[in-house]
Amino acid sequence: MPGELEIISRLRKRARAGPQVRVGIGDDAAVIATDGAQDLLACCDLMIEGVHFRREWAAPRFIGRKALAVTLSDIAAMGGTARYAMISLALPRTLSAQDIEDLFDGIYEMADASNVTIIGGDTSSSNDSLFIDTIVLGDCAAGRAITRAGAQVGDVIYVTGALGASALGLDLLERGFRLEDSDSIEAGARRHALMKHLAPEPRLQIGRRLGERGLATAMIDLSDGLSTDLGHLLEESRCGAILHATAIPLDESAQWLAANGLEIDPLQLALHGGEEYELLFTARPETRHRIAALASDCNLPLTVIGEIVASHGLQLERDGARQMIQLAGYEHRI
Amino acid sequence: MPGELEIISRLRKRARAGPQVRVGIGDDAAVIATDGAQDLLACCDLMIEGVHFRREWAAPRFIGRKALAVTLSDIAAMGGTARYAMISLALPRTLSAQDIEDLFDGIYEMADASNVTIIGGDTSSSNDSLFIDTIVLGDCAAGRAITRAGAQVGDVIYVTGALGASALGLDLLERGFRLEDSDSIEAGARRHALMKHLAPEPRLQIGRRLGERGLATAMIDLSDGLSTDLGHLLEESRCGAILHATAIPLDESAQWLAANGLEIDPLQLALHGGEEYELLFTARPETRHRIAALASDCNLPLTVIGEIVASHGLQLERDGARQMIQLAGYEHRI
Repeated sequence: MPGELEIISRLRKRARAGPQVRVGIGDDAAVIATDGAQDLLACCDLMIEGVHFRREWAAPRFIGRKALAVTLSDIAAMGGTARYAMISLALPRTLSAQDIEDLFDGIYEMADASNVTIIGGDTSSSNDSLFIDTIVLGDCAAGRAITRAGAQVGDVIYVTGALGASALGLDLLERGFRLEDSDSIEAGARRHALMKHLAPEPRLQIGRRLGERGLATAMIDLSDGLSTDLGHLLEESRCGAILHATAIPLDESAQWLAANGLEIDPLQLALHGGEEYELLFTARPETRHRIAALASDCNLPLTVIGEIVASHGLQLERDGARQMIQLAGYEHRI
Repeated sequence: MPGELEIISRLRKRARAGPQVRVGIGDDAAVIATDGAQDLLACCDLMIEGVHFRREWAAPRFIGRKALAVTLSDIAAMGGTARYAMISLALPRTLSAQDIEDLFDGIYEMADASNVTIIGGDTSSSNDSLFIDTIVLGDCAAGRAITRAGAQVGDVIYVTGALGASALGLDLLERGFRLEDSDSIEAGARRHALMKHLAPEPRLQIGRRLGERGLATAMIDLSDGLSTDLGHLLEESRCGAILHATAIPLDESAQWLAANGLEIDPLQLALHGGEEYELLFTARPETRHRIAALASDCNLPLTVIGEIVASHGLQLERDGARQMIQLAGYEHRI
């Protein structure tokens, strides 16, 4: 079976781009010009049992929350405002009425928290897995969507929040850890990582504000991992980047657990771990004060982790030396 | 597990309706007011292997075509114009690269024929069945979408095309018949029914024109079957209907096969068979000449099959007597 990147590449080649399509297949969301002052944003994301999640890892409410969160994150990555959602659900017969109620609780919880109205969807039975497709529609001022293609040489690279916790959470789930109540520091660190994986928060506010103020030159959300997603951005922007290892904000729980006997490498998790749903963006260096003010307004760390350069590829600067990072396409696996 | 209708009913109760949402959950498509002269239409439809289709029944190209066709049909049923589509696909590992290519061929064939641009989607592997969610965005003049709720007492009820062939096609597939090349009249009749089931044509042109000219007071597409879908329309419009058995346009292949030994009842197939994707609409009786002209323009039969009455419920008039038709919710099954 061809991989996802190959399928997307084939689709892009075949897609007719109408005059209204500002951005088609291949960015975080499509951007459509309208006859009004706003462009329409549209995107969808699949979450499939056995591919993206396991039911024994989390209650249905978490599955519902995350299914919508990951698609909202795509609208954030365009610098837009999420407005409406549709939910397509294929429900296996092994789900109880209460499970379904809980799944919808999670979906509505995320929708309400994000000021998004659920306007439709489809439901069906499924003979095997639980299958959720979430569709989000949003908008932004006409022509102001932030694509992956606008990074320029000399731009600085920012990331929101801290990285590595989601991949750590997945690792912990695979090792048999679950969300649990406990007062120990260790359990608290694990819980933090598990929650980052199971209940990611889409960065809607900062994404929208970066778009409104025109501060980001390119943006993408971290679904596949920093190295892979930055690779996508570099490919679309036709440039390269240098990342500074010591500048990358490492998740504190990963650092604590690594320092206390868990065999993980927080930097590797931060560089290559998927499903963070933080935003990665580039900006002109002269806007740094405005971006710092925005971070303060939104109460969210924004960290400069590198810069855009002309030579292609992604380099990591560490201990005074630079090494190339291989850009491997990430495919979801559990 | 609660049925689809119960789930939709619960969703409707919980959905917050923003001021821009003209029509939310529960019609063929959602209708969103914009700051331009057009309303946005949005809908999605799932097609799942083992629930809606079997791979041994038809080549992947047919599956792709139909997956998009059924969602385009929802836009037709709102009196709108389909513009954009997104496709979410979960692909089992048993699909070959050629199967996937053929599936996309079918999707693009239907998109191109309908003047629809594919702007995005998502793909994933699937551990078991093939899942396809198609999302279609469209538009119509602001405030002019045709919902299920506008039928009034005295309206006449129209249907496009002829009914019963899709259910017959499904029946034939279950009996082991497949699309085949043959010159016999019998094989031709079977082929017609199989094609109606496997490759339905969304009634985009007539739907759009009915909307543009404001000729339909209410409209729905026949996905669940005439009796069930008319029941939905009556429920939303809070009225009843009388259907005239002799007026219902019966599919010719069903009539021919019934007359030549196949044990089927063409009227029952027409009344209750699902997945026709014809349009059912109501209109004021004084617009009949304009509607006849439209039918002629579009080269598509439009037949009056009954009228809207004040007393609730659906009655069938046959041989001078009237009987109530039980409105059972249709759930897809194969």
